[in-house]
Order: sequence, then C-alpha cells, then structure tokens
Amino acid sequence: MPSTLQSIDPRTGERGASFDAVDVAAVAPAAEAAAVAARQPALADDARRADGLRRIADRLEARADEIVAVGGGETGLPEGRLRGELVRTTVQLRAFADFVVSGEHLGAIIDLPDPDAKPAPRPDLRRVLVPVGPVAVFGASNFPLAFSTVGGDTAAALAAGCPVVVKGHPSHPATGTLVASIAAAALADAGLPDGTFAHLLSGENEVGGALVDHPAIEAVAFTGSFRGGSALVERAARRGRPVPVYAEMGSLNPMVVTQGALRHGGHDIVSALAGSIATFAGQMCTKPGLVFVPSGAAGDAFARELADELAGREAEAMLSESIHAGFTAGLDRLGDVERLTPVLDADGDGFHHAPAAFRVRAGELAASPGVAEEIFGPAGVVVVYDSLDEIPALLEALGGQLTVTIHAADDEASALEPVVAAATRLAGRVLFGGVPTGVAVTWAMTHGGPWPATSAAGTTSVGLTAIERFQRPVTYQSAPQSLLPPALRDGNPLGIPRRVNGTLTRS
Amino acid sequence: MPSTLQSIDPRTGERGASFDAVDVAAVAPAAEAAAVAARQPALADDARRADGLRRIADRLEARADEIVAVGGGETGLPEGRLRGELVRTTVQLRAFADFVVSGEHLGAIIDLPDPDAKPAPRPDLRRVLVPVGPVAVFGASNFPLAFSTVGGDTAAALAAGCPVVVKGHPSHPATGTLVASIAAAALADAGLPDGTFAHLLSGENEVGGALVDHPAIEAVAFTGSFRGGSALVERAARRGRPVPVYAEMGSLNPMVVTQGALRHGGHDIVSALAGSIATFAGQMCTKPGLVFVPSGAAGDAFARELADELAGREAEAMLSESIHAGFTAGLDRLGDVERLTPVLDADGDGFHHAPAAFRVRAGELAASPGVAEEIFGPAGVVVVYDSLDEIPALLEALGGQLTVTIHAADDEASALEPVVAAATRLAGRVLFGGVPTGVAVTWAMTHGGPWPATSAAGTTSVGLTAIERFQRPVTYQSAPQSLLPPALRDGNPLGIPRRVNGTLTRS
Repeated sequence: MPSTLQSIDPRTGERGASFDAVDVAAVAPAAEAAAVAARQPALADDARRADGLRRIADRLEARADEIVAVGGGETGLPEGRLRGELVRTTVQLRAFADFVVSGEHLGAIIDLPDPDAKPAPRPDLRRVLVPVGPVAVFGASNFPLAFSTVGGDTAAALAAGCPVVVKGHPSHPATGTLVASIAAAALADAGLPDGTFAHLLSGENEVGGALVDHPAIEAVAFTGSFRGGSALVERAARRGRPVPVYAEMGSLNPMVVTQGALRHGGHDIVSALAGSIATFAGQMCTKPGLVFVPSGAAGDAFARELADELAGREAEAMLSESIHAGFTAGLDRLGDVERLTPVLDADGDGFHHAPAAFRVRAGELAASPGVAEEIFGPAGVVVVYDSLDEIPALLEALGGQLTVTIHAADDEASALEPVVAAATRLAGRVLFGGVPTGVAVTWAMTHGGPWPATSAAGTTSVGLTAIERFQRPVTYQSAPQSLLPPALRDGNPLGIPRRVNGTLTRS
Repeated sequence: MPSTLQSIDPRTGERGASFDAVDVAAVAPAAEAAAVAARQPALADDARRADGLRRIADRLEARADEIVAVGGGETGLPEGRLRGELVRTTVQLRAFADFVVSGEHLGAIIDLPDPDAKPAPRPDLRRVLVPVGPVAVFGASNFPLAFSTVGGDTAAALAAGCPVVVKGHPSHPATGTLVASIAAAALADAGLPDGTFAHLLSGENEVGGALVDHPAIEAVAFTGSFRGGSALVERAARRGRPVPVYAEMGSLNPMVVTQGALRHGGHDIVSALAGSIATFAGQMCTKPGLVFVPSGAAGDAFARELADELAGREAEAMLSESIHAGFTAGLDRLGDVERLTPVLDADGDGFHHAPAAFRVRAGELAASPGVAEEIFGPAGVVVVYDSLDEIPALLEALGGQLTVTIHAADDEASALEPVVAAATRLAGRVLFGGVPTGVAVTWAMTHGGPWPATSAAGTTSVGLTAIERFQRPVTYQSAPQSLLPPALRDGNPLGIPRRVNGTLTRS
C-alpha cells in the first residue's frame, strides 16, 4: 500500500509538505522502461547524452534559489553549504559531459592483424567500452544534491550511457522530487528516451530490495551507511544473476599527527580538524573520526585544544531524527567503553547535537570494542601513541578506509615511509596535511577504498574515472568498417587517443 | 586427511604417477605467506616482477619437451596443441613483463593544484594503481598451461604485484606440479619473496572453498564450468568481507550464418566450424555450440555438410573421466528433447568421444529446455531460422556469451545492424567470419562477457587489460615528492603516459 513521506525541517521539527511514496509495484515498470531506453540509439549518442547532462546542470542553476531553500528546509544544511553543493553537482554533470564528447571514455584499443604473431596469426581486433545497462542509484542523506538524485553516481551512469532508476531518499523527499522533475524534463528536452531516468521515492527497504532484484538492473550504486550498503551487497548476491554493487559505506578516516607536525604548529591543525569534525554536524563520510597524537606534553596540549575548539562550536541540526538517534546511540556506546575517557561531553536536543570527543591510549584501542566503528556525526576520538613505529599496525587494524591523513614535518619523510605504505594498503586517498572533508571532482580523485569503506575497492565514486563502473569492454574481430563504432574505425574519425598495436596515439 | 591424486592418461586409461594432495590445513599457511609477501618491497619492484615473469617463460621454454610430454600424458591433448599452448603461455608472461616495465599499467593521473576551482580550490591530487593483495587462482582443465598454474590469471596477478595461491587442478597433477616447481624456482631466482607463489594441489572442493574464505585473499580468478564458477561466487559472497570473483564460466558461443554467406561459400564455413566444434574434442570455452542457419535448400545443405564433416572426424580423447561423463550426460539430455533431431549420433568409449550434432527449428528453441546450455565437448546444435529479423531476440534469449560470430556477405551490412547490436549487448567479443576458438593475447582482446559467461562483465581474462582486475586506485593529496611513487613525481621520471590536468601526456 503506497504511503506518504513527510518533509521535516530538522532545525525546528516542523512538518512540511508530504509526498506520495511508491510501493514495490512501481519498481518493475521503472526498471522495464529503463531496459527499453537502454536499447534506444538516442541514448547511445554521446553528444546527446552530454547535452542532457548539461541541460540538467543549466536547469539546476536556473532554479538554485528554490532548490537551496527546499533542501535547507528538510536537511538543516546551511544555505552556503547547499549553494556549494549545487555548484559541485553542476560541475560534476558538466565534467562528465565534457568527458563524453571527448570520446576518451570509450577506451578504444586497436590491434591490427599480424600474420607473424605467435602462437597463431592475429586477426584484426578492436575493443571499445559499452554501457552495462540500467543502473539503480541509492543516494545519500547527507548530500541531498551532489550524492543523491542527480549526484555523482547518476551523472557517471548517464554519462556511460546507462538509464538510471533512483531510489529517492526518504529524508529529503521534497528536494529529491524537485530535482528529479528538473532532471527528467532536461533529459526529455535533449531528446533522450523515456525510461532514461526514474525516481522512486520510498522509505521502505523492500522497494530498494525489489529494485536490486529486478532482472533489468545491471549495476547498483549506493552512498550511505555500512548497514545499508552491506544489505544491498548481500541482496544482489542472492539474485539469480548477480550484479555488481558499488557501495560507499563511510569510514573512520584516521588522521596521524606526528611530533614534528606539532612542533611546527599544532594550532592550525586543531582548527582545521575541529572544523572537519564539527561542520555540518560531522555528517560527512570523510569526517576524521580517529586522530592519532603523540604522548607527552605536545600531544596533551593538542587534545586539550581540540576539546576546547569543539566545545566552542554550537550544536548543529542533524539531518533527521534517525541520524540523530544513531549518533546518540554511538556516543552511548563509546561512553560504555571502559578505557575511553570523555574529554568533551556534549548534549543535544531535538535534532541538534554539539560535538563530542574522547581519548584513549593506543595500546588500549584493540581492547576497546566499537571505537574502530564509524560514528556518523560530530564526534572524534583522540588516540595517544608513544612511537610512530606503532602507527602502521594501528592503522591496519582499523580495516579499509576512504582516507588516511598524515600531518608531519618535512624532515620526517623517511620515518613516514612505513606509515604511508600502511595507509596505501588501507585507503583510497592518502592526504598530507589538511583534512579529508571536501572531495574534489577531478580526474585523479579516488573516493573509495577497501571493505568496509566500500564494496568495490577497484573503483571510485567521485571523479571522472567513476564512469568505468558502468561500462564493460566489447571486442570486434575482423569487423567491416561500416559495422564498427566510429571510435574504432580506420582514420580515427573522432580524433581520440587510442592504443594501436600497444602504443597510445591520436593518429 | 591428505590424499593422493593420480595422473591418468585419457588416451589409454593408464595410471601414471601419483601426487600428494593437500588438505584444508595447507590453505592458511599459503595464504598467510602470500600476505607477508604482499608487503615486501621486492614484490612492489616492477622491474623485478618483470624479470620473474620472463624467467618463468625462459624456464618453461627450456623444459618444453618434458612439459609437453607430461601434459599430453594426462590430458590427451596432442603434442602440437600443447607446444602451441606453451608458446601462448610464454608470450603471455613476456607481454605482461613488457607492460610492467613500461610503467603504463600504473594508470598515473595527476591534477595540479587549482586555486580557482569551483566549488573549492583544488589541492594537488595524484592517483596510481596499486596491487589488491593475494589472489587465489583456479585453473582450467582444458588448458593445462595457458589457463592453469602459470596461465593468464597468474601472469596478470603477478604482473599487478599480487602474490598468487594456485588451487592446482586435479585432472593434471603432474603438469601442475612440474610447472609450479619451475615457476617457484624462477621467481626465487628473480629475488621475489617467499610466498609470492604457492601451488595447492587438491581435488577437494573444501580446499578451494577454504582458500576463497581466507581473510588474506583479496580476489579470486577462475576458469572452468558454470557450476564451479558460480559456487565460488556464492562462497565469496558469504565471507565476512566479500572479495571479487573473476570467473570465466564458458559459453554457447552462438554463430549466425546468413543466406548471403552461404551464397559466397558455405563450404569454407562448414570446414572451419567443424574444426572448431571437434578439435581437441570440443573442449574449448569458445567452442561454437549453436549455429543459426537459414531455412531452405542452402541451410539444409549446410547442416548436412556439417554433419558429414563431423562424421569424418575420429573420436578424440576427452580430458578426464568426469568430463567425458559430463559430455555424455549432456548428449543424453539433448537426446530427450522432443523437438531436437539428432543429425549425427556419435558414440564414444573409454575417455573418447566422436562429435555429435543436432538440429532444431528456431521457433522451437525456447520450448526446448537445455538446448541453450553449454555442452562441454564435441557437439553442436544447428538452429534453422526463417528470417534474419528473428536473430536479435533469439540471441538475447541465450543470455551472456563469451563470443558471437557472424558470417555474412559484404552487401548485408545494414541488415546486420540489429544483429550486431544484440551481439554487443550479449557478448564480450563479436566476430565477423572465422571461428571463436583461438583467443589472441593482445591489447584489444576481451575474453569475457555478461553472466553466465563470466561473473564480472566489466573485465577480461585474456589480454593485457586483464591486469586491471588485480589493481585498485589510490590518490595522494598534497604529498611531498619523496613520498610519492616515481610514477607520480614531477618531471615524469618513468617517462610514462600520464593524464595531467585531464590531458594525456608523456611530459
């Protein structure tokens, strides 16, 4: 039975508009329409898809005020943040559009015939990347624009040529519905077929489950909690025909601060770190949750300063009642850990919560259950270590991470090598200085990492290479020119870089 | 309890040497040694790994006579075939070695800082591909060299920098043991660490299962049957921390022959097709199992000629008693399908079996259960169609395939477009003319395809891009030069192609 979803302002608790949610019966028609769209030549037309992506960006910009107001009214995120997030969303859509018109996303490789090849003569072989087919996208609550309805996963999948069925997030039904209507109109204007994009608004796990189960769905993209992501991974594995699930499931994002870094200015690190823990109520998948500081006076001062900085922060609204409840449950869990000392015990009311901080000795981390689990919200744990030599093992005990951040002095580079090696084994991104929040949408970005940070360590969900998740290779052997895609034809009509007989060339 | 595995000559049924098989207790030490090896700087040294791959190739060549004799004595494959397969194996090892010394496998991408980037200034971001860690390899029975102990999966994983634990195939224990000892010595000579390569010979599913389950294993590669591959996929999904399984599980490899092709010389197609179905007793994952021919006189003549060609072939030894049993069970299954007409009813004895062929009308294919399942061995089904318009739907009903082969006349190109589009949706490789057996080891090869042909349609198990399965991206943000891998340093010390600020360049 279809139900309704309520838009709720977490800053005030006020109830806004209500929206019809779909039930499982809505899944099959959307997935089947996506399967039909996947076969339309219009969707295979790179220029047309690029036009569609740009039209979405243009229309989002044209209605920025409205989107930001609606988004703020049901997420509690400040206007400046939502304006920035909208820019990130449009930058992302346009970057994928540029990529697609360049033809470079096609990964063209050509091996010309070689009669002398061993063990057998080689035929003409030409390989291109093609779209996998319909993609199910599950957006995140904490980025209602950039990681939701037409966020990175949707942009990457559409760029690849895949229809998208979004499972609309129940904590921002108004924003999702508005953005989905903008996107659908923009894609239709670009001449893309019906079924290219659908938005199934629902708070029921069964709707998302049915979407993952549907035989037309060829891949699943998710951003959210470990619980949610791993449930989708399990669900997809139980399908008759398994499909890949690209789930970004959050992270502790450990930060390592050395003695040398503290000598050169612990205060700046504290300021940046406090901002990274507390801003937007710490509801970021790259929020640093564990900070390793050296024992002794400098480390003690760092921990004290961090607590003071955090204590000076106002309580911010959290995204929803359930996220607030999850955060306070996490704090209670940490509060019960015997070896953990609260250094800042902050309260909340309604949907608001002020930052909290704890402290533990590195040697007691392993015996402190739950400390190495992400707490989504404004909380951090300071871990006091005696020697940098302990750090690699401490990091590796944490499991896969989206990021590891290292603050050190220039003259410590060689001592850091084992730490960098461990961080490389552990994480998708290793930062030197700064804070991990703020993920640039670029070519070189990796927003990913080994399990449990994600379900697919070989991929990224941010940056242009994210498109690869929604492509697969096809090789044409001895094909007539007229039946080859233009990317593979003699004379390189698209003028793209191709690997020909092993060498990258544009000729 | 450890047992022994017997080397058996399928040509004669004679029992050869016996080999100690390992039990599950052997899995953990091998996996743990691999995990230790994965951290050794020697294994991260591209030049050293390339040297190791080349040394394996050199030593395999130096002992070619012995390897071919041992291989023939327990697989029944003819000497010429095994010599060719050994060349394929060494070509593959050396191609990966060349790739690794080129540094191009590192996928280097650099984004220089951009203070004007929107929505926020961009830091220095540099991305490289790193090895995933220890890989479990399950080789195939039908390619005891090129797809087994040091076959494509092992070569690709070692090239990526991953230690390999091979689950040795029980149907060629002597070949596996010999090749493994050669490989281990070659890798040690190259200075690669203990644990880089292990060979666990076993016929027990529980040993393979324990290997997949071991927490040190980061990826699984498999070539073999659908039953075996899908069991590993399920097993890996049940691990606490799921890992990717790259399973190549065989295929029907449908072939489409048009009226135009028959006008221009059906006889040559028949000859090539009969060879592709019958050679090496049809025990090839790319053996064409379904051939679509037009109704009418030309199609009838084609089917008759094919049966005659196949009837003229001698019974060949199959690889093992279990494969022979599986093949005869498959023939019995087809024999029970009411609408299927046997056109060549061939017998076998001992491990031998002569080719078999069947015929069915296209309209009755959907109602003929089991016809669209691979039968591993020398059997083909001729499917008679009335119009090329039927072909796309007929192909798609078959599910994912490694290959689709199209035989048509030059003037049919435009009529073929829907067939090519369907084949592209279905398969990893689309051939125009020829036969799908014989998979070139090149840059542009895709030996893969949608489920059930493989478990990972986005990848290939043959060709240089196979290395990507065993790599994952890591991005360094604002890293000091001395802590960056050389591939990412200023001045491009490796001289490799890198994407810098979005543009491919060697400078």
